[in-house]
Order: sequence, then structure tokens, then C-alpha cells
Amino acid sequence: MQGVCLVIGAGAGIGGTVGRRFARAGYHAALCRRTGQEDLDALVAEIEADGGGASGHLLNAVDDGAIEELVEKVETEIGPIEVVVYNLGAQIGNRPLTETSYKAFELGWRMATFGLFRLANAVIPAMEARGSGTLLVTSATAAVRGNAGQHSHAAAMGGRRMLCQSLNAEFAPKGIHVAHILVDGSVDAPDTLGKMLGEEGFQALRESRGGEHDGLMLPEKMAETYLHIAEQHRSVWTHELDLRSFSDLAWWNHR
Amino acid sequence: MQGVCLVIGAGAGIGGTVGRRFARAGYHAALCRRTGQEDLDALVAEIEADGGGASGHLLNAVDDGAIEELVEKVETEIGPIEVVVYNLGAQIGNRPLTETSYKAFELGWRMATFGLFRLANAVIPAMEARGSGTLLVTSATAAVRGNAGQHSHAAAMGGRRMLCQSLNAEFAPKGIHVAHILVDGSVDAPDTLGKMLGEEGFQALRESRGGEHDGLMLPEKMAETYLHIAEQHRSVWTHELDLRSFSDLAWWNHR
Amino acid sequence: MQGVCLVIGAGAGIGGTVGRRFARAGYHAALCRRTGQEDLDALVAEIEADGGGASGHLLNAVDDGAIEELVEKVETEIGPIEVVVYNLGAQIGNRPLTETSYKAFELGWRMATFGLFRLANAVIPAMEARGSGTLLVTSATAAVRGNAGQHSHAAAMGGRRMLCQSLNAEFAPKGIHVAHILVDGSVDAPDTLGKMLGEEGFQALRESRGGEHDGLMLPEKMAETYLHIAEQHRSVWTHELDLRSFSDLAWWNHR
Amino acid sequence: MQGVCLVIGAGAGIGGTVGRRFARAGYHAALCRRTGQEDLDALVAEIEADGGGASGHLLNAVDDGAIEELVEKVETEIGPIEVVVYNLGAQIGNRPLTETSYKAFELGWRMATFGLFRLANAVIPAMEARGSGTLLVTSATAAVRGNAGQHSHAAAMGGRRMLCQSLNAEFAPKGIHVAHILVDGSVDAPDTLGKMLGEEGFQALRESRGGEHDGLMLPEKMAETYLHIAEQHRSVWTHELDLRSFSDLAWWNHR
Repeated sequence: MQGVCLVIGAGAGIGGTVGRRFARAGYHAALCRRTGQEDLDALVAEIEADGGGASGHLLNAVDDGAIEELVEKVETEIGPIEVVVYNLGAQIGNRPLTETSYKAFELGWRMATFGLFRLANAVIPAMEARGSGTLLVTSATAAVRGNAGQHSHAAAMGGRRMLCQSLNAEFAPKGIHVAHILVDGSVDAPDTLGKMLGEEGFQALRESRGGEHDGLMLPEKMAETYLHIAEQHRSVWTHELDLRSFSDLAWWNHR
Repeated sequence: MQGVCLVIGAGAGIGGTVGRRFARAGYHAALCRRTGQEDLDALVAEIEADGGGASGHLLNAVDDGAIEELVEKVETEIGPIEVVVYNLGAQIGNRPLTETSYKAFELGWRMATFGLFRLANAVIPAMEARGSGTLLVTSATAAVRGNAGQHSHAAAMGGRRMLCQSLNAEFAPKGIHVAHILVDGSVDAPDTLGKMLGEEGFQALRESRGGEHDGLMLPEKMAETYLHIAEQHRSVWTHELDLRSFSDLAWWNHR
Repeated sequence: MQGVCLVIGAGAGIGGTVGRRFARAGYHAALCRRTGQEDLDALVAEIEADGGGASGHLLNAVDDGAIEELVEKVETEIGPIEVVVYNLGAQIGNRPLTETSYKAFELGWRMATFGLFRLANAVIPAMEARGSGTLLVTSATAAVRGNAGQHSHAAAMGGRRMLCQSLNAEFAPKGIHVAHILVDGSVDAPDTLGKMLGEEGFQALRESRGGEHDGLMLPEKMAETYLHIAEQHRSVWTHELDLRSFSDLAWWNHR
Repeated sequence: MQGVCLVIGAGAGIGGTVGRRFARAGYHAALCRRTGQEDLDALVAEIEADGGGASGHLLNAVDDGAIEELVEKVETEIGPIEVVVYNLGAQIGNRPLTETSYKAFELGWRMATFGLFRLANAVIPAMEARGSGTLLVTSATAAVRGNAGQHSHAAAMGGRRMLCQSLNAEFAPKGIHVAHILVDGSVDAPDTLGKMLGEEGFQALRESRGGEHDGLMLPEKMAETYLHIAEQHRSVWTHELDLRSFSDLAWWNHR
């Protein structure tokens, strides 16, 4: 059976692109997203047309048992999960405290923190039995600093980062590579940033970043680093790295 | 009406001692703990015998509405809450991933992260209206690094720390002081560490720390720093500080 | 003999004010600055008029042997140095790489890093023999992040911070308290910020910070925290804390 | 002319191996080390036998003008320096404060901090004129925490890290990629760790790390990550990453 790269959160930005890249590297890409069967089917078809293996799975990660069942199904029906990309964001935009509902705060935690914990519970025992496995976690600036209006996002991502460290501490010696990938810039992703800004605003942002538009982070290029991290030899593992465009200001700097 | 110092988590260690110290400084100490009416009554009586004002409140902070109602009651019946000490821990000892239940993980978040968010929602609007207020948050090493077995605790405390930062970013300019107090050592607290180690083990630890037993962190001494932080002039606020005994190894060091 | 608080860098801002505060708390304030005999004499006279003990010492800290001789002289002629405040800054304003001379870069290191190392060498052995002592190090945002144009300052302060940690690791168990005080805001200091901005610019900044001018960090208020840190019981030491005004943006935030 | 990868500190561990890897990727490897002409010649011969381009340069990086002249010579005689690897360590083992001489402390700074500053001054203007360039800086745990006995090393590496950040802040927008690579484990390097431990001790350590000896960090595997970082597209740059073996404990963890 072919090794599987499971992507939780496989939209048109980082997730889907990373899945496609791993498929090209020989993995079966098991792609999950909450909605959008058509887009998912199109992505699977594209990968298969390219000679790769892929499958699409609609998944609401916050549903009880959803992640756990998916992991079991993939392991049973497709193949051993060698790489997991946890790519669920929890950004809800800047909201003052009084406009951040309990429900939004809890949902942030369910997606960003608890979902990762559930995934780890579901997927790591089989990896441990095999003596290897990789868990790549997309993260955000909010994991390392809480900005105004980011109550839900920062609490959720801060929890995610510490969880990645405790997972690494327990499982690195057992051959499981956990990496916390800090995305500290604007991604050229129509599905997330694009929707947040609207079509016109997004296009304006793109153009403000120069002729090659690479002042935004290009998902195809990001995917190269995801793949590299997954392919690092176990004697040389990266647990945490940041990623941003040359034109982004690092989170610790200001103008 | 007298200014109130509300302590969420007022046991025999940090919380109760800090409450007593603030009472001596002129605040009414509103002391909350989950169980132990007798101990609570005794603490209130002790403060009153000392000439201070205090009240005791049994509170299960994770119950829906419990924190919110308490805040409203204190503001209405006792006085304006000038200082809040959020002192609920979420340490459950080191547990491997497979022995960390979903329930334990969620409870950690409810106590360490969501409880603070609910408290902030309940108490900050009145502080904002008054143009001042102080929120002192006891935190732990797990807020800055995830150790093996600390999945629940680290995720919960990491979320707490980022939340403190986002609260500070929104409310410092409005006169509200949020401080994240990183307790990075063993506290001489019979209620928590003592119970975890058992009476004999706790006594042995105490004695291993030298004749004055001050190799453990003494709550009476910690309370002085809590009070100092609350009394800092608004032109000189500390948002984060660490505390440990001279004989503790800082979390970033190793032997 | 009276316990001494030695202040290296005792100008009209933090250093001199902290010295005055410690004198009021019963220490002999040994005040050092590079130039300005008259201002130094005036400060000593003011402290003495207030009933305190003080002495003034012109000192070019980067001169070979200058710090070492001063420490010896103070220990011999005045009294045991119980507290040292290392308050030499090394800010030279923002300068592009090509305008940062080797000389400026080296001078930054000599003042901010090497000077502290020399001071530690000179003063800690006597403290160690006495089993106690306090080293308070004023530091800056540049110790935790390198901003554009801050090559010299950031390299120097980053070194200073790591040195504080290694000193703490070696000497805390021996009863010596080392604290790294991160000043992360604009200080209301005519000698430093005032000279950098010019009289008019400084006054404009002051007024922009509101009617009580406490949007700038007030040295008198900062001195209270310096004193508190020095007075912490050894079971409850702070190694690192940040300080900023309620109206300053924390270094990790942006607008 | 062929693009050059200049390696400052090209011994038998990370530096030489990285140089060899870049040569295989098409760069001319300009390899510098302080002593060991024979080893250097052998490495150059090995690269050339492999079909690559290389040159060897003896260089005492702390000599006045040495780095500057080398950069000029390479740019003039060999080709444009597209990548620089600054790989000079400054570890002198654990030494108590009183056994850390002023000379050792200063030498640490000259190698770890000032040398990088001088290199940046020498090499960045030409990179800036070309609109691209990469500066890979090998760093150590001491850059992020000061341990006991690490006074010289920690101060030097802490300065190095902050300098990398200020260089990144100024030059990333100009197309120059600066990466701070935190080596947080024991490298299988006979020249450094091997010499420190002695032949027998080093062999014992190797064997303690398991049958494949990959509990030590293998330089050949590290070189893959150095190359990946240099090849990242400018829309997706990593500024900081850590590297350790699966069997190393991360610096923030303890047993």
C-alpha cells in the first residue's frame, strides 16, 4: 500500500497545494475539507491526471468522532498515514472583547487546539507502532503574540503551539517528527485571504506587492518547504520555523 | 464602597495568601474557591480579626454563568472590583498522550483559558467605564514550553498567555493593567503541591531545600510581588514577569 | 558600614532617580556617570539634604580597569556593595548597515555587554563571599528583537540579555539575584530621549501623551519597581520583567 | 562566472559538508578555515573529483581586514557571492565566571558577533546591487538561553541572533535572505565535538546513540536543510529554524 499524506484543511491555498506537492512526491494525498465537494473532486482529478494518487473527504473536523473515524478509514482502506498536515485555521478577524462571543472563542479552540489533540490521539499510535511518522502543523503569528482583537485566535493558536511542543517532547524519541510551521505573512490564497478582503480588495493587495505578485506568499513555494520538512532525516529535524515573504515585516519588527 | 480584590482560586497557597495581603493593603478580599467552606470561613475570619474586610464564595468556575454571576454580585453588593487575581491552575501531572482523556484536555482549557476569557468579559467593561483596573494572572512554566506529558496543561496555559497579551493590547490604552505572572518553581503550598506529593513526600522536599525552607517559593513573599504589580503606576506597568526561588533552575536552563 | 547601591550610569533619567530612591530606602548611593561633575554634585547634595548617603564618581566605563577600580574603591572606602544597577545604554539611533561603523559597533558591545561582564567579575566574588547581592540590569527592547537600523544596539543588548541569564544560572544558587529589566517604552528622561529629540521635540512628545504626561515612563515610578525587585525575598525572585507605559505598544504588537 | 557559495568555517563538520553540498548543486564552493591547509586541499580535491568547483582559503577571521579582503578577492577573482555560510563557533566549554578571562570573552564576541557584522558589511552591498543574496548563519542554543558557564558563548551568540534579525529587517525587502539556523543538538563532527571529547569519548557517545549513530546530527543531512533554505523562493523565506536529532531533547525541555 502507498504511504498516505493526510491533509486536514485542503482548500485552494496552502492545504490543497501541499497535498498536490506530496502526491507528486509519491504519496497518496488524502484531502479533507469541510465543504466544497466540487472543488475537492476537481483537485483529486487534477492530481490523478498528473499521475498521482488522491482521494477527497468532506469532513467537519469539530464534529464528535469525525477526525477519529477518518483516520481509521484512511489507515484501513487507503494506506498507512506517513504524513499529516494539520492546516485548519481559526482566524475570525479582529474583534474587540465584547464582540467575541463565547461560542466563537470555543470554536477557535475546537478547530485550532482540540482538533489537533484529537488528531494526535487518533494517528500517533499507529505511527508509533511503525516507528516513524510526520505531523506538520500550519500555524500563525498569533501563536507567538496576542494582538488586539485576536482573543480567540491567539488563545487557540498559543495552545496549539504548546501542544506541538509537548507532542514533540513525548514522540520525537519514538521517531515521530512534529513541526510547527509559523506562517507569518499574507498568503496568496483566494479561499481565505481572498474571501476576507473581497475580490477587488484582494486583487489590489496582490498588485501592491509588485509585478511578480510574490510579495504575497505563494502556496506552491510554501509546499516545497512543507515537503522538505517531511523529508528531513531523523538526525536533523526542525521543530519550528517561520515563513514569510521577503516583503513581509517579521512579527517582531515594526516600521 | 471599598475597592475589591477578587481572587478566583483562593486556596491555602498563592491565592489565599495574596487575598490576605491585599486585605491588609486596604482592599476587601472577595475570596473564591471550589470547595472547602470551613477553610474559606477560617480565612475570612482571620482577615477580619486582622482588621481587614473579606468575604468567602464557593464557586465552581467551570459552571455556566458562575463567574459572571459572581462578578455581578460582588460589584453590586460589595464594591467595585479594582483588582482580580485569576489563580486557577490546570496541572494534572505528567500523562502520556494516550492517558490524557478528551475530558481532561477540555477541562484544562475550561479552567485555564476559557475561564479567564469569561472573567475578562464579565469584569472588564466595568473597569473600562471606571478607566482603571488590574488583572493579575497566575501562570506556569507550561505557558512558555510544552514538556513531555503536559499536553493538557501546556495547551491550556499557552492559550492563557496569548489571551493575556491580546487583552493587554486592547485594554492597556484604556487604563487596565493585565499581568501574566509566570510561576516557574515549586510553591510551598500544602493544598496543591502538598497533596500531589503526599504529606511525607512534601515534608521531604521541604527539608531538601535547606534550613529556612525557602528553596520552595513562599506564598507570603510571592504576595508582595502581586501587590507591587497591582500598585505600579500606569506609566510603568509590567506585563510579564517570572518568579522562582534562588534554588530553582530557570525553565530555560538544565543541569 | 552602610550597604551600598552602586549605580553605573546615573544620569537625570532612570539611573539617578533609582539611586535617589535606594538612598531613601537606606542605602548609600554610589553614583557614577561619565561626565557632568556639577549635575552629579547636585544630585549627591540633594540626597544628603534629604537625609540620605551618597557619593558621586566620574567614570568612563569603557576605560580599562575603570569599573574594576571603582568597585574596589567603593567596597574598601564606603561599604559592601549590596545592589548594583547597571544602567548604561548603547542606543545610537537607527543607522543603516553601511553607516554603522566598526567603531560604533564595538563601542556598543563595550558599553552594553563587556562592561556588564567586567562589572560582574569585579563585584560578584565579594557578593558570593557574603552569600547575597543584587544585580539589576536595565535593558531595552533591542535585547529581544533586532529592528532595522539597530545592528549595533541589538547585537549589544542581545548579548547583555544572554549574559544576564548565564550569570543567573551560575549565581542564583549562591544567593545572588540577577534581574534583566526590559524597558520597552519611551522614558521621560531629558538626558537621553530629550537630547535625542531636542527640547522642542521632546516637549511635543510629552504633550502628545496626555495631560498628566504619564504616557511617557516616569523615572520616579520606575524606581519603585527597581527597589521592589531588589527587595524580593530569595524564595521569590524575578529574573526578567518588562516595563512600559499604559499607552506604549508592547514590542510584540503592532497597530 | 559561476555563482559562489562562500563558507566561513569549513571544517570537517557542518561547514565543509555544506560546502560540498552546495558545490554539487552547482555553486563554486569557496572554503575558508583558520588552519589545516592539507585538509582544505583534500576537500577541494574531493569536490573537484566529484565534478564540482571549489577553492580553499586559509583565513583567520578575527584578523583585521581578513574577511573583508577575502570577500573582495572572491568577488573579483572567482564570481559573485550568492550564498554565504557563516559557520564560526565560539564554544569554549563551560567555565565559571572567574575562569572566563576578558580575553576569552572578547574573542567569543570577535568570532561570533563582530565577525558576522564585518562579513555583512563586506558582502551585502554587492548582493544589494544584484538584488539578491543569501546569508546562512549557523547558530547554537546559547543564542536563545544562557546556561551556567556559558558567559562568553551566550553573550556572543545572543548578539549574533539579534544581529541576524536587524540584518533581516533592513535587507529582506531588498531581496537578501538572512537565516539564523539554531543547531540544538550534538553534531557528529570529529573536528569540534570529537576534539572536545577525545577520540574514545567521542566514539562512546556515538555508540550510545544507537546502531545507525544518527542520534548525533549528521552533517550530510544538515547540509540538505542548508541548501533548502538557500533555495527557498523569496515569497517564502525562513528566518529562523531549529535543528536537532530525534533523540536530542529540545533546549526548552528537561527530563
